Amino acid sequence: MFSFAVEATDGAARAGRLVTPHGEVETPAFMPVGTAGAVKAVTFRDVREAGAQIVLANTYHLMLRPGDALVAERGGLHGFTGWDGPILTDSGGYQVFSLTALRRLSEDGVAFRSHLDGSAHQLTPERSLDVQMNLGADIVMAFDECPPWPAPRSAVAEATDRTTRWARRSRQAHRRSDQWLFGIVQGGVHLDLREKSASEIMEMDFAGHGIGGLSVGEPKADMLRVLDHLHPILPATRPRYLMGVGTPEDLVEAVARGVDLFDCVLPTRNARNGQLFTSEGKISIRNAQYRADGRPPDPRCACFTCRTASRAYLRHLHLAGEMTAATLLTIHNLAFYLDTLRQMRHSLRLGRFEAFRQEMLRALAAPAGGS
Amino acid sequence: MFSFAVEATDGAARAGRLVTPHGEVETPAFMPVGTAGAVKAVTFRDVREAGAQIVLANTYHLMLRPGDALVAERGGLHGFTGWDGPILTDSGGYQVFSLTALRRLSEDGVAFRSHLDGSAHQLTPERSLDVQMNLGADIVMAFDECPPWPAPRSAVAEATDRTTRWARRSRQAHRRSDQWLFGIVQGGVHLDLREKSASEIMEMDFAGHGIGGLSVGEPKADMLRVLDHLHPILPATRPRYLMGVGTPEDLVEAVARGVDLFDCVLPTRNARNGQLFTSEGKISIRNAQYRADGRPPDPRCACFTCRTASRAYLRHLHLAGEMTAATLLTIHNLAFYLDTLRQMRHSLRLGRFEAFRQEMLRALAAPAGGS
Repeated sequence: MFSFAVEATDGAARAGRLVTPHGEVETPAFMPVGTAGAVKAVTFRDVREAGAQIVLANTYHLMLRPGDALVAERGGLHGFTGWDGPILTDSGGYQVFSLTALRRLSEDGVAFRSHLDGSAHQLTPERSLDVQMNLGADIVMAFDECPPWPAPRSAVAEATDRTTRWARRSRQAHRRSDQWLFGIVQGGVHLDLREKSASEIMEMDFAGHGIGGLSVGEPKADMLRVLDHLHPILPATRPRYLMGVGTPEDLVEAVARGVDLFDCVLPTRNARNGQLFTSEGKISIRNAQYRADGRPPDPRCACFTCRTASRAYLRHLHLAGEMTAATLLTIHNLAFYLDTLRQMRHSLRLGRFEAFRQEMLRALAAPAGGS
Repeated sequence: MFSFAVEATDGAARAGRLVTPHGEVETPAFMPVGTAGAVKAVTFRDVREAGAQIVLANTYHLMLRPGDALVAERGGLHGFTGWDGPILTDSGGYQVFSLTALRRLSEDGVAFRSHLDGSAHQLTPERSLDVQMNLGADIVMAFDECPPWPAPRSAVAEATDRTTRWARRSRQAHRRSDQWLFGIVQGGVHLDLREKSASEIMEMDFAGHGIGGLSVGEPKADMLRVLDHLHPILPATRPRYLMGVGTPEDLVEAVARGVDLFDCVLPTRNARNGQLFTSEGKISIRNAQYRADGRPPDPRCACFTCRTASRAYLRHLHLAGEMTAATLLTIHNLAFYLDTLRQMRHSLRLGRFEAFRQEMLRALAAPAGGS
């Protein structure tokens, strides 16, 4: 029902195949974020056509609304949303810490008030896994504590230890054989804490490993240093998921350090703010220079938006506040991310990933594609 | 380049074919409203797949933003928006009267301030046609004055006379042979004014006739009475366009009275407010009764939304404020409207339009499809 195989490598980078009950995922892969059961501003058909093979949904949002019991009643996330491909749910921990104002952390878990209506809730490893079993994703995550950045080393150490204890309880609480459970490695930017966390998490024999607590504000070099350090430690035969990352540059650098899975709101959120990712760098569609620009967002892209819409048209729709602008920009940004990953996989299988990485970083560093 | 032919009739109702430089339109037809160059919350692919053969765009909105000169520079509305099918633009008159607070009406035209930024503008018959020639739609409308309802008979009479004088100037100002220009009949709910308006407008030999000033608040019976009265007067060989109408019931009643073309924001606007049109009547997706309802919006509909989404899922997305809800509901409402027109055309060609009309009105009057 589940398998993961590395099929090509180039240095630390690897191309592989993740098989789930709802289909295969070629890795390295990017997972569009479907927070509340939909990827914002688009339909799942758009998501599929942009090239997505797996999507992420947020446990925190879905447990509050519409509630995991309702989702279970309607056949889990696959039945409820109509997306019939692989799905991964996060543990809810990150959102509790980033979205709720009133919360109380204890060894048991986190008590918090909903950001929607102030109602009282609790997330514990057991409750997180219950919710995730109700949601029915193919891959579910252990409940972890993600410390903020910056934080005193002692606080990071404490969160890392608690993450280990919560991972054990998550493992205990998980009872669905049609789901893969991933453990999460914490430890902030401290290599010794990362090493300790990895070794404790690995002892529990999870199907895969999340790398949490990165891209939370720390310098980019720190993130890459942690990935470099974890690469030889984490078992090569299991998938590695760098949570919440990142820019196109981040993705290629993380793939170069052995990461297989990513999720991030950047392509979708930035689209709604008028920002396009292109093969020549980012462009802000509001910019006056695109007023009469008949070119597509990215001349090298073959997505629906680039096939049918000019920068001038997209700029107009965005400035006019038309939802269609958010849809068209989201379609392109997702296609750009997903196609970038496809190119990474391709270059890996051709044994020329390092060359691809250099070319990609050079192109993205060039002056933005507007002129 | 242009033609219109009535191919089947049933009483006053007619099925026909309108040929334009950008393709054919089977009539009676509904035109989705693409106010600012996009149908709100969907892409033109969605509009096409929902069954649209022609769309409407608003002269008032587009002249203010992005400006008709820019649209012309980018190849007119077809080049600018990427919609390659037939397009109709209105004259801008109706929006000037409904959207602007500060305006001054004179024989020359209307001076007004933009609802966007307060900037000063003028619309005259000449300027309206200039803008419409820049926008480059297949069908353009004469500049008219649409009096509010209720209004004193003398005010309606004055607006009707002015509409005739403005129609003459519109005719003079129009110089593109690749556009069809329609005149507009006004006259409110007064049959003698309608008759006078029709006769004056018909003298100018327009390619088709808009029927304006209806569905502006008057009792439904008054609208139908005006249509009944105009049917034998307007030339049977030219298309008739009932502007800004209406509900599904309005459409079938107007088709029964010889109307060929419609436009209305109801299916798109109501979708964004959570209201679905179905073969069993309207349903409000916010309603608690749909909380766990696994049925599609309309069990008889084959649109993308009905094929892939349940009422429970749509209710959740709408309550969560997800733009995707607006997209999915808009796709269904457009498909419902467009399919209703398709069924009217079909029944007309089978000579059973009257039976279809009775069945449709009965089904829509039944208790809403929720239970």
